[in-house]
Amino acid sequence: MVHTGSCGDRLHDILVGYLPILTWMPKYKKSDLLYDAVSGITVALTLMPQSIAYASLAGLDPLFGLYAACFGSVMYIIFGSVRQITIGPASVVAFLTFNYVNPALPTTAVILCFVSGIVELICGLFRLGFVVEFVSMPVTGGFTSAAAIIMASSQLRGLFGISYDAKNCMEMWIKFVEHIEHFRLADTAMGLLCIFVLIGLKSLKSIKVNAKGIKAKSYSVILFLLTTGSNVLVVIVSSIIAYFSIRQGQSPLVLTGTIASGIPQFRLPFLDYEDEDEKFTFFEGLSRLWPGAIVVPLVSILSTVSVAKAFSGGKVIDASQEMIALGFCNIFSSFMGSMPVAGSMTRSALNHTTGVRTTFSSIFTTILGMLSLLFLTPLLYYIPKSSLSAVLICAVTSMFRYDMMISLWKTNRRDLIPFTTAFVSCLIFDVEMGLLFGICVDLLCVLYRSARPSISIEKETNSGYVKWVVRPSSGLLFPAVDFMRQRIIAEMSSSERPNKPNLIIVDCVHFDKTDFTAAQGIKSLINELKSESCQLELMNAKECVAAILEATLNVKILSMVPLQDSIKKFNF
Amino acid sequence: MVHTGSCGDRLHDILVGYLPILTWMPKYKKSDLLYDAVSGITVALTLMPQSIAYASLAGLDPLFGLYAACFGSVMYIIFGSVRQITIGPASVVAFLTFNYVNPALPTTAVILCFVSGIVELICGLFRLGFVVEFVSMPVTGGFTSAAAIIMASSQLRGLFGISYDAKNCMEMWIKFVEHIEHFRLADTAMGLLCIFVLIGLKSLKSIKVNAKGIKAKSYSVILFLLTTGSNVLVVIVSSIIAYFSIRQGQSPLVLTGTIASGIPQFRLPFLDYEDEDEKFTFFEGLSRLWPGAIVVPLVSILSTVSVAKAFSGGKVIDASQEMIALGFCNIFSSFMGSMPVAGSMTRSALNHTTGVRTTFSSIFTTILGMLSLLFLTPLLYYIPKSSLSAVLICAVTSMFRYDMMISLWKTNRRDLIPFTTAFVSCLIFDVEMGLLFGICVDLLCVLYRSARPSISIEKETNSGYVKWVVRPSSGLLFPAVDFMRQRIIAEMSSSERPNKPNLIIVDCVHFDKTDFTAAQGIKSLINELKSESCQLELMNAKECVAAILEATLNVKILSMVPLQDSIKKFNF
Repeated sequence: MVHTGSCGDRLHDILVGYLPILTWMPKYKKSDLLYDAVSGITVALTLMPQSIAYASLAGLDPLFGLYAACFGSVMYIIFGSVRQITIGPASVVAFLTFNYVNPALPTTAVILCFVSGIVELICGLFRLGFVVEFVSMPVTGGFTSAAAIIMASSQLRGLFGISYDAKNCMEMWIKFVEHIEHFRLADTAMGLLCIFVLIGLKSLKSIKVNAKGIKAKSYSVILFLLTTGSNVLVVIVSSIIAYFSIRQGQSPLVLTGTIASGIPQFRLPFLDYEDEDEKFTFFEGLSRLWPGAIVVPLVSILSTVSVAKAFSGGKVIDASQEMIALGFCNIFSSFMGSMPVAGSMTRSALNHTTGVRTTFSSIFTTILGMLSLLFLTPLLYYIPKSSLSAVLICAVTSMFRYDMMISLWKTNRRDLIPFTTAFVSCLIFDVEMGLLFGICVDLLCVLYRSARPSISIEKETNSGYVKWVVRPSSGLLFPAVDFMRQRIIAEMSSSERPNKPNLIIVDCVHFDKTDFTAAQGIKSLINELKSESCQLELMNAKECVAAILEATLNVKILSMVPLQDSIKKFNF
Repeated sequence: MVHTGSCGDRLHDILVGYLPILTWMPKYKKSDLLYDAVSGITVALTLMPQSIAYASLAGLDPLFGLYAACFGSVMYIIFGSVRQITIGPASVVAFLTFNYVNPALPTTAVILCFVSGIVELICGLFRLGFVVEFVSMPVTGGFTSAAAIIMASSQLRGLFGISYDAKNCMEMWIKFVEHIEHFRLADTAMGLLCIFVLIGLKSLKSIKVNAKGIKAKSYSVILFLLTTGSNVLVVIVSSIIAYFSIRQGQSPLVLTGTIASGIPQFRLPFLDYEDEDEKFTFFEGLSRLWPGAIVVPLVSILSTVSVAKAFSGGKVIDASQEMIALGFCNIFSSFMGSMPVAGSMTRSALNHTTGVRTTFSSIFTTILGMLSLLFLTPLLYYIPKSSLSAVLICAVTSMFRYDMMISLWKTNRRDLIPFTTAFVSCLIFDVEMGLLFGICVDLLCVLYRSARPSISIEKETNSGYVKWVVRPSSGLLFPAVDFMRQRIIAEMSSSERPNKPNLIIVDCVHFDKTDFTAAQGIKSLINELKSESCQLELMNAKECVAAILEATLNVKILSMVPLQDSIKKFNF
């Protein structure tokens, strides 16, 4: 039975691995459709105002964001494996897009989207999912906290209705202080009001309904709609206010302005481009984005995979498959002229709350998005920029990880090093430099820890024969072996003659692997000990370690760890 | 007794640590002086022709090399801790100098020397000696092997008497093939002859003397002089040939040319400079050398420390002290107008063979060097360039580590990855890029290994209650915890209901340290297991690990590794 059709089975497994749609599509039921529709539509309500806000965060026309919201998730239906995830415009990715895309050449954002997709797809096909594991939570925490501060700072000008150019955080605040005297009263009032309303609506979440029966249900539905629809509500109400004030001949508010309506044309992203002033080819555009084509996909992958992990619910996440899905999402939406997309934590959480059943729910988001593109764009003209800034500021505050700071302080202060490194260097330099720097410092910490095992030396004297047992607390790859060697020699030279050891036994029980430099280090230790007429032996070596050590040295391996046959052993 | 003068003792220990001269100077005997003199003079015999050759390798006037040979070692007498080491011009450092110093501005080599010294001194004072441990032997092996090939290739034009400009290895060979038709017969003949003679003289080493008594002793002295003095011999004989051919009105050979004689003036290296065509300040010169000011000290430190380790003979090498010594050597010799200096393996080996007693032997090298600067420089005019090239080619062949390649292939093929990476990328790109790339790949390998422990799962069933014991083979820092989590979940989802575990125990005996991300990973594992109604417990946790895990999670830590009081425990 095991052998029957094993080849077909394997092919099926591989297919299902690459196309998760095959797992849920055959079992899809009508009741699933209902849940998916509710989730998809709810997400769309949050997504539409967010997408316009994120496009403005990226310094782009709102259409880039709307297209991203419409088409970002389509491919995830086929390739995505976590049902809660919705792909679309995301705050950090939008912010990075702003860093790399020249506002004079907005269509380079489409190139960035396409190239990010290609990079993600390649990383996924080469199974580079494991790379994500090398970015620790303190580093991502520090990075997103800094990004939250920078993004909120970038919205100050929108909130106060003033305008200036600034790229980094320090500059934003300096320019803000310089220009604050030109603030526009109406915009400021509208912006601050929106923030208060948003905070108020979000705090409704914590209200507990006391009533019973249908009343209770309808109360909680209303509360849910008010909290999840808070962005839409704020944007709609502020737009109505703007509309009527214009009707009355006043125009005190800075508005979003005209947006072209209609569904975008399908267009190959590697053809030539033509922006207002300039014509350029795909590769010319790409060359202006250069480091962004690495940083944007990396950050997109990081955020998408961490969202996927948060909602996997006891399933193993195949990070490489998520990369492939994200790659296809970006590639497809670049054909529709969108900015880069990624998974969003808040919208996925919304999907989770509304009980989404499959990734198919995205189709409803797309349909709703296309309908608004067809019929609602004239209305978008009236959205005040200050209310969009308010939406954005409220959206990014949850990204500031003060909770992580507190728990790091309480439980593991050493991990504050990578957190602070990432956080501070993101604020001082660029975010990509900060991320890179944080990752490097973090990995150096890991290396340093593996290079500095704690070493215990047990001393036994038996009728004048001195034996030392040396126990390193972890494996002995090359950075650690010299450390052990120096410890032993230092310990020996501090011992007087009668206590000098005749035999030193190194306990290899914690040695998982070894390498050439480590073996050479032990070799020179043996020679050095010989000159002090002391012998060295190894015990408890695993087979793979013993093989390398015996091939390099002429040492007696005292005892080997027995291969436990009863244990199911994985060797990767 | 322990307390008496402990403060004075400690001061003395610190002083001796920084000034190793204090350990040998008080005990210095007349017999030591004899041995030191013999060693110093022998080294000088090899050093003088090498220094001219290395200066030409660096694209500089021979004087830069001669000054380096004279004054490079002076400070090592005071600050150096390994008696065998002689500091002076070294092949790889000379080659790097060629990469960074513009031939039109040769005095920038002095700036490079000074700045390298400062960088080395600072690294030493900040006790950064441990950094050296992160460069494994395969990486240095690959780097020096590639450097040997590049240096030998760079000498082809000298050997064949042709001239062209080429910076990288590929270009050297292409230009060589293009220009080979212009080869000069006399130079080629002289160069190849010198190579044959050098190989012949070096092979005398393996001859065993059959005679007895004084005859045997004199034979072996002659053999020793012929092998160690082979460079000098070849250079002198070829110069004499060149001298007489010029006396006869012929000038078939390309010669070294005029060298200014006399001892250099002591000159502050941070004053303004004036080269043939151009005036420039210290900082202008420095800005033209920029990456060299990092790469040259790094490589100098690496080679000096590895030489020191090779000859330490059972003593712990304080890499930071070696950095300080090397720093002072470079700073002092930059005052005398030298090119950058470092420790040399061949000359240190020579010192070792001649039985050097203290670092004081360098003083004889310096005296002999100064004498030749005063009286012999007119003779240096006649040294044929092709014979210098021959000396260099023979000197660098020993740097090609085919022995390491073979032993890596035999014992530890995985370590061929860093070796090959360093080797190939040095040949394709620059040597500094190759070194950097090799180190990075190597450290990534270490990280990857620590991220992928082997995990054994032991399954026990006791009257329907299924218990699994999970044993990771090494510590669980953040890159590894997700790996373990995925293994457990994958193993669970492949088990059918009756075999699904009710309890999973993770054996933490190999956990040396842990961090925030790892603790969070275990936390989410616990939650995932809860949804499958399975409990997780930890056992054999060390105190430091247990503290962090207990603070983050609400897990029962089953058992702790007892603190063995009888064991002398080092916690670094």
